[in-house]
Amino acid sequence: MTHIDGETRIVAILGDPIAQAKSPQLFNAFFERHGVNAALVPFHVPAADLGLVLDGLHGIVNLAGVVVTVPHKLQATAYAARLSEAAQQTGAVNCLRREADGSWTGAMFDGAGFVKGLLGRAHVVRGKSALIVGTGGAGVAVAHALIDAGIASLDLFDSNATSLQRLTQALQGRGSGVVVGESAARARAGHDFVVNATPCGMRAGDPLPIDLADAGPHAVIADLIMKPAQTRLLEEAEARGLATHPGRHLLESSVEEMVAFLGLLAQSQERSTAACKAEIESP
Amino acid sequence: MTHIDGETRIVAILGDPIAQAKSPQLFNAFFERHGVNAALVPFHVPAADLGLVLDGLHGIVNLAGVVVTVPHKLQATAYAARLSEAAQQTGAVNCLRREADGSWTGAMFDGAGFVKGLLGRAHVVRGKSALIVGTGGAGVAVAHALIDAGIASLDLFDSNATSLQRLTQALQGRGSGVVVGESAARARAGHDFVVNATPCGMRAGDPLPIDLADAGPHAVIADLIMKPAQTRLLEEAEARGLATHPGRHLLESSVEEMVAFLGLLAQSQERSTAACKAEIESP
Repeated sequence: MTHIDGETRIVAILGDPIAQAKSPQLFNAFFERHGVNAALVPFHVPAADLGLVLDGLHGIVNLAGVVVTVPHKLQATAYAARLSEAAQQTGAVNCLRREADGSWTGAMFDGAGFVKGLLGRAHVVRGKSALIVGTGGAGVAVAHALIDAGIASLDLFDSNATSLQRLTQALQGRGSGVVVGESAARARAGHDFVVNATPCGMRAGDPLPIDLADAGPHAVIADLIMKPAQTRLLEEAEARGLATHPGRHLLESSVEEMVAFLGLLAQSQERSTAACKAEIESP
Repeated sequence: MTHIDGETRIVAILGDPIAQAKSPQLFNAFFERHGVNAALVPFHVPAADLGLVLDGLHGIVNLAGVVVTVPHKLQATAYAARLSEAAQQTGAVNCLRREADGSWTGAMFDGAGFVKGLLGRAHVVRGKSALIVGTGGAGVAVAHALIDAGIASLDLFDSNATSLQRLTQALQGRGSGVVVGESAARARAGHDFVVNATPCGMRAGDPLPIDLADAGPHAVIADLIMKPAQTRLLEEAEARGLATHPGRHLLESSVEEMVAFLGLLAQSQERSTAACKAEIESP
């Protein structure tokens, strides 16, 4: 439940569709818990109207910014005057902050949120090995964030060879020393983390995106899909006695980061500003 | 307190400033009482950006419409593809409904809300006499609505002779049989209602907009100003033992009309649609 008055600052989440979004509940509960006079509201925006809407939102003084979700994460970068490092790496944003001059600063918290979610559940990332299936925006974000968190090796798969090759080269080009290779969509015994970053599993009847037959007994099977909360992949993992990590952890873990980035969390404001000064460069 | 999820329909109130607006609390309490999954949020929009913002809001599928407040009520008519009869009479809108094709239908409920507020407090309008001081948007709306409700005579005052003359002629031109005349800003014994439709009284230290020295003992002194809730004029009226009618009654009385117009009240939808069919013509 959200208190709204004339002084409430607004955050909008833009997506198509948007009815399934869980961000309104998560953000608004966070605002209430922290005594922040702000509200996050859903905006159902077709891709063709994204530019029109973002241009219009420039003029709303008490709009703190927008959360960007499917299918707008890539397209929205075009409207940002500045991009955070994670947004540059992924070529995508999931958050646009409205600056005082009306311009947008774009950031991408999906990868950091995913890793924070893993760490928050006491999973060790440093020195481990992961398989990521899907090299679209979500896969790119998670791959970079896992490298930032000290993963030792990454296997990647995508049925789109161009997308796969682009991410492989980008990760190898970071010079992080992480072993990055291409792989099949099949877990091996050495994979500590197996991540579905494809949309496969959103619809009933979707095939399994990853073959878990050879997964090691200690593997953590993660799905970035948030709806359904329990995908077929996660069911299959549970049936095999494997640990699972559902998509909602990513969002839950990134809410605070996004609220701070949007300047809505007074106590985190200073940290957020410092982080952005260090992080943000022109795209 | 408002529930917001991915399926919530949004209404925005556009004004400058907006921090003082009471509409968020009134509308959201109404939505909660009636089980409507909708939320009204404040948008602080400078006049120079009104067109930009309204153009952008076209692209938000789950936006039911906008409530328009000071200083946008006149300017917003330019963006409406259709205007209700009250909006045409006043040359102003306080509500824009977003149609399925993204176009706006404008309506003006200020006058009807004011009259409904009077009637709701058991004041009889039919056959009575009123003085309206201020012939800007609010005064125009109230004057037409009082005529619609059967008032017998109207005295008008404005320090702006052009504005005063325009409204006098427009009301005389309606051919309603109502006696319409120009007057001083001074209540006479014959005035059953005395209405302040100027902004005079919003700021501490504003002079009294109307001289109440000669008001009759049964006069109702109404102020359209909502903040402060108790203006100097209303204090003066109370000191003289006169009945008062504060501005908030207007808004409270028009909330249901606006919600129905916006298509958010299922049980009122049919009535609203019928009323609009009858009422709405091209501007």
